[in-house]
This record gives sequence, structure tokens and C-alpha cells, in this order.
Amino acid sequence: MKNLETIQQLDAADLLADFRNRFELPDGMIYLDGNSLGVMPKSAPARMKDVVETQWGQHLITSWNRHDWIGLPRRLGGMIAGLIGAKPEEVVVADSTSINIFKTLSAAVQLNPDRSVILSETGNFPTNVYMMQGLSANSAASIRHQMVPTDELEAHFNDDVAALLITQAHYKTGYLHDMQAITRAAQAKGILVIWDLCHSAGALPIDLNACNADMAVGCGYKYLNGGPGAPAFIFVAERHQEDVMPVLSGWLGHARPFDFSDQYVPAPGIDRFKCSSPSILGMSALECGLEIAAEADMTEVRKKSVALTELFIEQVEARLAGHGFKLASPRDPKIRGSQVSFHHENGYPIMQALIDRGVIGDFRDPDILRFGFTPLYTSYEDVWRAAEILQEIMESGAWREARYSVRAAVT
Amino acid sequence: MKNLETIQQLDAADLLADFRNRFELPDGMIYLDGNSLGVMPKSAPARMKDVVETQWGQHLITSWNRHDWIGLPRRLGGMIAGLIGAKPEEVVVADSTSINIFKTLSAAVQLNPDRSVILSETGNFPTNVYMMQGLSANSAASIRHQMVPTDELEAHFNDDVAALLITQAHYKTGYLHDMQAITRAAQAKGILVIWDLCHSAGALPIDLNACNADMAVGCGYKYLNGGPGAPAFIFVAERHQEDVMPVLSGWLGHARPFDFSDQYVPAPGIDRFKCSSPSILGMSALECGLEIAAEADMTEVRKKSVALTELFIEQVEARLAGHGFKLASPRDPKIRGSQVSFHHENGYPIMQALIDRGVIGDFRDPDILRFGFTPLYTSYEDVWRAAEILQEIMESGAWREARYSVRAAVT
Repeated sequence: MKNLETIQQLDAADLLADFRNRFELPDGMIYLDGNSLGVMPKSAPARMKDVVETQWGQHLITSWNRHDWIGLPRRLGGMIAGLIGAKPEEVVVADSTSINIFKTLSAAVQLNPDRSVILSETGNFPTNVYMMQGLSANSAASIRHQMVPTDELEAHFNDDVAALLITQAHYKTGYLHDMQAITRAAQAKGILVIWDLCHSAGALPIDLNACNADMAVGCGYKYLNGGPGAPAFIFVAERHQEDVMPVLSGWLGHARPFDFSDQYVPAPGIDRFKCSSPSILGMSALECGLEIAAEADMTEVRKKSVALTELFIEQVEARLAGHGFKLASPRDPKIRGSQVSFHHENGYPIMQALIDRGVIGDFRDPDILRFGFTPLYTSYEDVWRAAEILQEIMESGAWREARYSVRAAVT
Repeated sequence: MKNLETIQQLDAADLLADFRNRFELPDGMIYLDGNSLGVMPKSAPARMKDVVETQWGQHLITSWNRHDWIGLPRRLGGMIAGLIGAKPEEVVVADSTSINIFKTLSAAVQLNPDRSVILSETGNFPTNVYMMQGLSANSAASIRHQMVPTDELEAHFNDDVAALLITQAHYKTGYLHDMQAITRAAQAKGILVIWDLCHSAGALPIDLNACNADMAVGCGYKYLNGGPGAPAFIFVAERHQEDVMPVLSGWLGHARPFDFSDQYVPAPGIDRFKCSSPSILGMSALECGLEIAAEADMTEVRKKSVALTELFIEQVEARLAGHGFKLASPRDPKIRGSQVSFHHENGYPIMQALIDRGVIGDFRDPDILRFGFTPLYTSYEDVWRAAEILQEIMESGAWREARYSVRAAVT
């Protein structure tokens, strides 16, 4: 097992180490929950002060032009495009992940009108499933949703499937799908592929266009560090954009919103996937996170992410053999996202005990302790210390007295 | 015509005058655009600093409980309920007005399954119309939307109409519908009535339950002073809530979101109309606006609103006779919201000239100058000065040299 000195050498050699200074890391906290809510960029307070006090407070309505509020959805979309292998004119920031899932599913159904199934995997993050259920119960086309276990997905690729909605990195286990292979296999059967990037955007290199992805969605508040409840994004490949008539046809997706016409005419391209007035406060905070991500080399981010998760698994398994922890994430880093989960029958109080001691992860039913590793601000020493604290909690039995209760509301 | 001294006496006697101190009013600006974007409450900067720097920056994920982020949608919903004659358990803050329109329309179609028409008036704010179009093109029920002129609405109330979507105060003219009479007439034919309160909530007393309204939506950034792109609200009468299976069935509308189950089960009551993680920054700013509105007597607000709009019409017509202004708003204040609009063939450059001189209103195609009056922070002297400046612009011909260009992106 590596000793602390070795660990500190890893930090000293870390090419991404300087990024840590761009974020606010609370004293005494080891934050391993950036896969739920990313930490605050240090640029955020001044930015928000400007947006609130000057842009809103002083310039008011003129800020739509003066500070290009109206351009925010596309400006941020362009920044995200650079992180996910898309063209700037293929991504826009708007609404929430759930709403954007609805937009992509209803678009896919339109694009594949002779098919009746929307497919996903059992255990996918619930909002994906729920939005499928809502759509299938109400779509003009007779659409039904089908959920199958991950290892049976490909067996269900057939010519009745209109769309596959699939999450690249699983929220509970971190299992990482092969975007290229799945997209190719599904498209070979004429299926449109929608990628949910909530747990991968900003954590690893993504190349939607190299994989020929059809559509994608993702959230702003995890690895993109956009702040609590940050707006989400939607990607629609250029080749599909003009063939979709949005179901959520709000006025800011209109070709000429200021004509105030009685007839909806979709805007050219990705703009039609906007719906309503952009959330300026949320988008301004998100911009701070995106500015940092734009400077990071995602290949280096992934390299460090793998090293951090490998180190955590090694440390936990070495220090806590016999304490009942069972790895819930893939052992092979090639199919593991930027998180590590362990099963433990006492997972809930153990996580409370960790939180009491400043190690913030989270718990997911029924027995999963979930730890997120965010290479831009997590150090090797953080990982080492977290494992050390877990060891203390288990060896002392302190987890039995855990008292602090937190249930995260975001995933 | 009243002189300045008389005007100043009106301000001195104004029961709402103290509210002006609660808002940031930029120096040298007469802001008559609060019907588009309300001004900033003075409490907003400190609140946002706390939310950004402490709640997000320091407490991170624990803020979902510690600062009750998870309760924000219902807490703010309860505050809005008090302004619109609803019960706290009938209103929730979520998503945007457009998205909430979609929720109410699709709910109404479910509640009235044997009917095939969703009805509105021509010239309604475009997003209402567009969301109707998107829904009707994609609904499982064969729904069509129908737009008829305002004075023909009632003639179209029949037993094929599932829902009437109607905006209480018209965005262009300020025309104010009689909520009680229309709701009663439509319901007599079995029609569900959805009120869009975007241009009335916070500007006048509204009593949805006294009118037996079925559903309503509204936005947070106009008379509620919630900040640019603030989240919107949705009202669903208690009697309908349990009978609606949401189409936009996001995970935060689930009965037990933290079960992460594969099957959507709607939350009891109004919570099912939530969809995704709340926009914490947007909601926190909105809370500042709502706290002020909660202290105001809406009957006094309406009384002053009528006085301000009457004064503006009187001043403009007296000072500018022969200059080509034609009142576009109803002359009878009983059917006029808190705005005054004038037609003028040179409306666009005239509005630019006003904005150049610090009088902020806005322009709406083809020829409408639109002025909003917000009793909590607009003084009688503001109104008097705005008319005086308009007179100077017209008499000097200065409007011909207007250069500053602004096109508001919100309504």
C-alpha cells in the first residue's frame, strides 16, 4: 500500500494541480460529491455580484443586449460543445435535464415515425425512465417504453425501436458505456441514440460527433460546477435539427420571436430547442464553471480520474479487508466513470459518520456508498485521507454513533 | 392638467410610498418596464451572496437540508398562493411559464377526455399559442387548438372544448379580462379554465379560488420582481390534482424520489407538478421579491395602479394632443391592467429617444409604445416626469435622432 509520502509526490507531479486554486474548497472538508453538486468556482461570487447588482440592479431590461443575456443559451452551449465533441451550433443551454430528455425523445419519435418503442436500461437514472413513461402515455404516435437489463440491451435493438436513451456513466455504480460501440450497434438497426451525459460531461473526453451520436442531454451542476440546480444542455446533431418540429415549442425557439406572431415557426438549427426566457442567474454561474473546464485538457482529466479512483479502491480494500465493503463499481477502469461505489450493509450510518468527519460522499439505496472524484479539485492526498478516515470509523466502531443526517436531493 | 405640486402631494399621501425604499432604482432612470423585468429588491445582493458563497460555496450538498433547498418550490409556491387567492398546497414554483402552460394544457386534456379542442384568443402572448400548437400536434388524444378573437370567445364555448387558456392582462394592450365572468361562462359549458397571470400576479388582487379557477400559470420576473429569467409558478385547484398523471413526469414530482424506482408514481397533490432539481439561484432571488409582495395590500396596489395609469393617460393626452398618439389600452380602468400602451407610427424611434433620456418603456410591433406601472416603486412624479420628457422629445423633434437600440427579450 502506498504511503503518504508517495501520495504527496503524486500531487506534486499532478499537471492539473493548479486548477484546485480556481475552486473554493471549504476548510476541513474532503469533498467527494462533485458528481452530485460541483464545488463553487472562485470566480462565481464576483460574477454573481455583477449580474445581480449591476446587470439586473442598474441596467435592468437593457442587459438583454448590453450584457448579451439573450445570447447566453448559445454562448454556453458553444462552450459545452467543446467539451463533448460537438459543433457550437449543435448545443444549447436550456431548461432542465428532464425537460431536455423529453425534447430529445419526442424528436426521436418524429424522426423515426414508423417505429413504436423507446428503449432504455433498467436501473437507469429514474428521471430518464419517468420522462419516457410520460411521453409514451401521451404521444400521438403509439409509443411504448421498454426497459431491459444492460446486458440484454443489444438483443433488443430491432426495427421497431425508434430511440435508445442511455446514460454514459451510471449514477449509482459509475459503469461507463462504450459510446462508440453502442451508437454503432443501435444505428445499424436504424435506432436513434440519445446519450445522457449527466455523469460524464466534464469528467472525461467525450466525442459525440466522432461516435455519430444523434442527440444528447446533460446537467450543469455536477462535473461542470455550474451551481445548485444549474440549467441543463441539449445536443442535437446538425443532420437532424431541421427535421424536428419541437413539441415544447416555446416562444424563444421561434424563428422570429419578436414578431409575436400567432403561428409557431421553428428557429433554424439548434435554437428551436430553446423554449422560454433563459434563467440568467443560473446561466451566469454556470458560465464560471464552464470557463474553467474549457481550459482543462480532458485527456489529462481522465488520466487523473482513473488514477484517483484506482487509488481509492486500492486504499479501501487494503485498509478495510474484512470490514464488509464490496466494490459496486466496475473494477476495470476502462468501464468506470469518475466515481467509486461500495456496497455495505451499514452503508447509511457509515456515510453519516464520514460526513460528520468532513468526508462528503453520499448514500444511495439500498446499500451503496458513493464517492465522486473530480480531477480538477480532488488531490491524491484527499483520497488517501478519506480512506484513512473510513478506516478509523470502522476500526473504532464510531459509525454506530453517526448522528448527522443528509440526503442529497440531486444525483 | 395637474401641476407638479399636486403630483407631489399625491406622493406624500401615498400609503405604499415606503415600499419604494425596498427596491434599487437606478439614478436618473424612470423605469416603466416592470411589466417586463421588475427592479431588484435591495435585499437581493446580500441574499445572493449568502446563497452563492455560504450555501453553495461552503455547505455544498448539505444545503439541500440545512438551507431547505429542497423545500424552495413549495415555500415560494405558498408565498405566491397568498397573492393569487390560492391555498398554499395549490401552488408550486417550477420551470418556466411555457413549460407550465404545457403541464396545465396536458392536464386539462386528461381531465376532459371526451373533448377535442383547446381554445384561446388570437393575439394572446405567443408562447401560449405555440405551446398549444406543440401539444395539439403531439397529443395522444386528437386535440386541436383554436384561436378566436376576444369578442368571439364566449360564442365558442361549447361541449367540444376541453380547456380555455386565457391571459388575464394582455401583454400588449393591458386589456384585463373579467376572471369571474369568463370562468363561470366557460365552466357552464364544462370547459376547464387556465389563467395566465404573467401580467397580473403582483399587480392587482387575484382570487383564483373565489372564481373557481381550474389552473393557472405565471412568471416570477415581472411584477413579482424575481430577477431575470426567474422561475415560474403553476396553480392546480386541489379538486383536480389527484386526477392528473403528469406528462412531464420528472423525478422530483415522484412520490418517493429517493427510492430511485423504475416506476413513476406521482407525488400527492401539487408536488407532482414539479419536474427536476430546482434552480436554487433563481428561486433565492425570487424569494426576495415575494417577501416584499407578501407585505403589500393588493387592494392598495390596485388602487394606486389605476391612479398611475389614469394620470399617465391624462398627461400624455393633454401634453401631446396632435402628436399622433392613440391610446391602445382600454380607457376604462376597470378593464385595464397595470400598463398603458399607445399606438404611434414612429413608436420605435420615439421609444429609443425616451430610453436615451432614462425613461424605460418598451416597443412592441408594429407600433406600440408600452409603459408598465408598478405601484410598489413607481411614484406619481415618475409618471409626471415621463410624460414631460415625452413632450420634450416630440416638440423638439429629438426622437428623429434616437440612437440607442434596445429590444427587450422578455415580455
